[in-house]
Amino acid sequence: MTQATIITIGDELLIGQTIDTNSAFIAKELNGIGIWVKRRLAIGDVQEEILNALTTESKACDVVIITGGLGPTGDDITKQVLAEYFNAELRVDEGALQNVKDIFSKLNRPLTERNSKQAEVPDACTVLPNKTGTAPGMWFEKQGVIYVSLPGVPHEMVGLMQDSVIPKLKEQLKLQAIVHKTLLTAGQGESTIADALADFEKNLPEHIKLAYLPAYGMVRLRLTGRGDNMQLLEQETAQQFDQLKDLVKDWMVIDKDMPLEEVVGNLLVEKSKFVATAESCTGGYIAHLITAKSGASTSFKGSVVCYANEAKENVLGVAHGTIIKYGAVSEETIIEMAKGIVYVMNADYAIATSGIMGPKGGTPEKPVGTVWIAVANKEKVVSKKYVFRFDRKRNIEQTALTSLNMLRQFILQEEKE
Amino acid sequence: MTQATIITIGDELLIGQTIDTNSAFIAKELNGIGIWVKRRLAIGDVQEEILNALTTESKACDVVIITGGLGPTGDDITKQVLAEYFNAELRVDEGALQNVKDIFSKLNRPLTERNSKQAEVPDACTVLPNKTGTAPGMWFEKQGVIYVSLPGVPHEMVGLMQDSVIPKLKEQLKLQAIVHKTLLTAGQGESTIADALADFEKNLPEHIKLAYLPAYGMVRLRLTGRGDNMQLLEQETAQQFDQLKDLVKDWMVIDKDMPLEEVVGNLLVEKSKFVATAESCTGGYIAHLITAKSGASTSFKGSVVCYANEAKENVLGVAHGTIIKYGAVSEETIIEMAKGIVYVMNADYAIATSGIMGPKGGTPEKPVGTVWIAVANKEKVVSKKYVFRFDRKRNIEQTALTSLNMLRQFILQEEKE
Repeated sequence: MTQATIITIGDELLIGQTIDTNSAFIAKELNGIGIWVKRRLAIGDVQEEILNALTTESKACDVVIITGGLGPTGDDITKQVLAEYFNAELRVDEGALQNVKDIFSKLNRPLTERNSKQAEVPDACTVLPNKTGTAPGMWFEKQGVIYVSLPGVPHEMVGLMQDSVIPKLKEQLKLQAIVHKTLLTAGQGESTIADALADFEKNLPEHIKLAYLPAYGMVRLRLTGRGDNMQLLEQETAQQFDQLKDLVKDWMVIDKDMPLEEVVGNLLVEKSKFVATAESCTGGYIAHLITAKSGASTSFKGSVVCYANEAKENVLGVAHGTIIKYGAVSEETIIEMAKGIVYVMNADYAIATSGIMGPKGGTPEKPVGTVWIAVANKEKVVSKKYVFRFDRKRNIEQTALTSLNMLRQFILQEEKE
Repeated sequence: MTQATIITIGDELLIGQTIDTNSAFIAKELNGIGIWVKRRLAIGDVQEEILNALTTESKACDVVIITGGLGPTGDDITKQVLAEYFNAELRVDEGALQNVKDIFSKLNRPLTERNSKQAEVPDACTVLPNKTGTAPGMWFEKQGVIYVSLPGVPHEMVGLMQDSVIPKLKEQLKLQAIVHKTLLTAGQGESTIADALADFEKNLPEHIKLAYLPAYGMVRLRLTGRGDNMQLLEQETAQQFDQLKDLVKDWMVIDKDMPLEEVVGNLLVEKSKFVATAESCTGGYIAHLITAKSGASTSFKGSVVCYANEAKENVLGVAHGTIIKYGAVSEETIIEMAKGIVYVMNADYAIATSGIMGPKGGTPEKPVGTVWIAVANKEKVVSKKYVFRFDRKRNIEQTALTSLNMLRQFILQEEKE
């Protein structure tokens, strides 16, 4: 099986300034074409460290993907080190230089010498054009190992992976067939699911593996089959996947690798219905999740982030007396918020949230993590209290996803009635 | 200088299902006490790989922090492998068992054998209590190297790092003094700043380093000084920092390591003023940024996410004719949105955004990335058009941060008038 290492270069990763989202993207792309990522390594902008990593990591795998260290500033030395490693000279690539010129002319900025240097590459490489940035991708081969160097800027790296690296790897390597089948469950913990699937997992053939991927009270289950015959592998994996679906049918949200907000969005589009959200404690995060994907306007009207109580009253029409009597975090308030937002936004469905996300603001009666969620249509409201026990960030995320799942169940229940 | 390696264990990192936020947090914490993270390595749940990593990484550093692979499911083997590596036996730790029992009794869930096993640890370790989860932290020492194993669940890891690991490392190691000084700039690219700072950087003493940390059109500049005498080091670094501040004074937002939304929040609190946002293209992301930190209610009233045009009209009072004549992404509409939200939310300041974030929806006149931003108070509106050239996610983030910076400048300008 073809194996890869991802090396990310840059002190910003080692000091914790930057969260490495690139490696996850690259790993997912490589996995998708059947290349197993064996290791991911982050190192600093240090010549010796980079040379050492290139030597060591290339022994254990067939493909080395390197990101970062290609910027115009002095601390970026990846290109120089690559030139040394491949016994190459830096030379200007005319295509890359034209690209740098085009970008600066579009931006109406003068081209400095520092920027022009971005077009220099080691002469041992094949240049991979970067459509959205000045640093070109570079493809090297040495003793049967493929090395690809990409810029660390996420959208530039993404473009290069999709446009050049993945197609070129598929073309050049004889890749083992790989099949992924993923489903999403909600409402059960990892260990309960693991107990229910113990026998299934034991009886899986050697070349099909089950993975548990928990996040925010939901668990993704993924079967990965590997083999030489794609057609046979697809059949086998599909058969096992049918068994798996049956075993978790009570908790299954969808039999695809799809985020919950998209599942809900599709359900709404299917019914030509629109949702709106009234968000106190989630502070706009649900709206952000829904609108993170292009096309949200076909199922989403909008949101009122009613952080201040007066916004709950003035914009959503929650009665002043309700908030005074029961508090902002209460069943009474959340129901009025849900009813209000349906009408204010002229929506078919509503989600409303109000809670104490922490770390401050808790009381003995309403500790940090207490949250009321309501979902509604024009006639009916369903509300529920939860107590989450995480940090602020995760409490917000958990509230958002729980409320989306409540809406999904509300819509499915409606169908039955 | 004390050096560390962070090893994260888990197939989910190698298949790209999970973004590794733990390593960044751990790196930041270690950096803060003067431990340099030399390498970060991610490997799978494979015995041989884990043993190999423990052996190799411990040769190059003094501290090895390991996260992940401590869950209750069968694919988590870190504990077994640690036992083997340290020639130890797994035994039940009574304190850890009590903790597991307490958690399950609080959750009102029956304790399974699988869960109880979480309290088993290799008898060569010191147990670090986990206040928020079932898997205890483990501290080992072998041939002068400290190994710490932590659960991969972020909030559990965070608690253990802060409560146990950092204090214990400080106590046990003689750490070199370290001083960080960070400032935030906006409005200039990395290479222009680098040109302006070329001489400054060249003249820095060997033990003080300058780092460029660019993100979303803003660049953080960080000086890191290392030495033996903390007092002297603080003086030296502060002197250099003063020079640096002077050199970038035209672009400096704040001379601290503080996110822009917090800078703006503090500015508002100082003036006892409130902001509200009217978000079309940012879809609630600005509100989410502002409310991600506890205490936002002292400067934030709320937001109307007016994704549908009817929400712009019905909730914010944008004239139907304005949208018909000029379009939703226009100066005329954005000005009415900004004026509307100030009144609807009874706020002192407003931010309004409307744009085409992509990948779909662009036209020749208004290509993807076109965005109108307005900031306002009750008397005055300032609006500006931008064309960003990133992917959807980054266009949204860039719009949010640009608008927060526009508001900051608007408030500072007001002071001058």
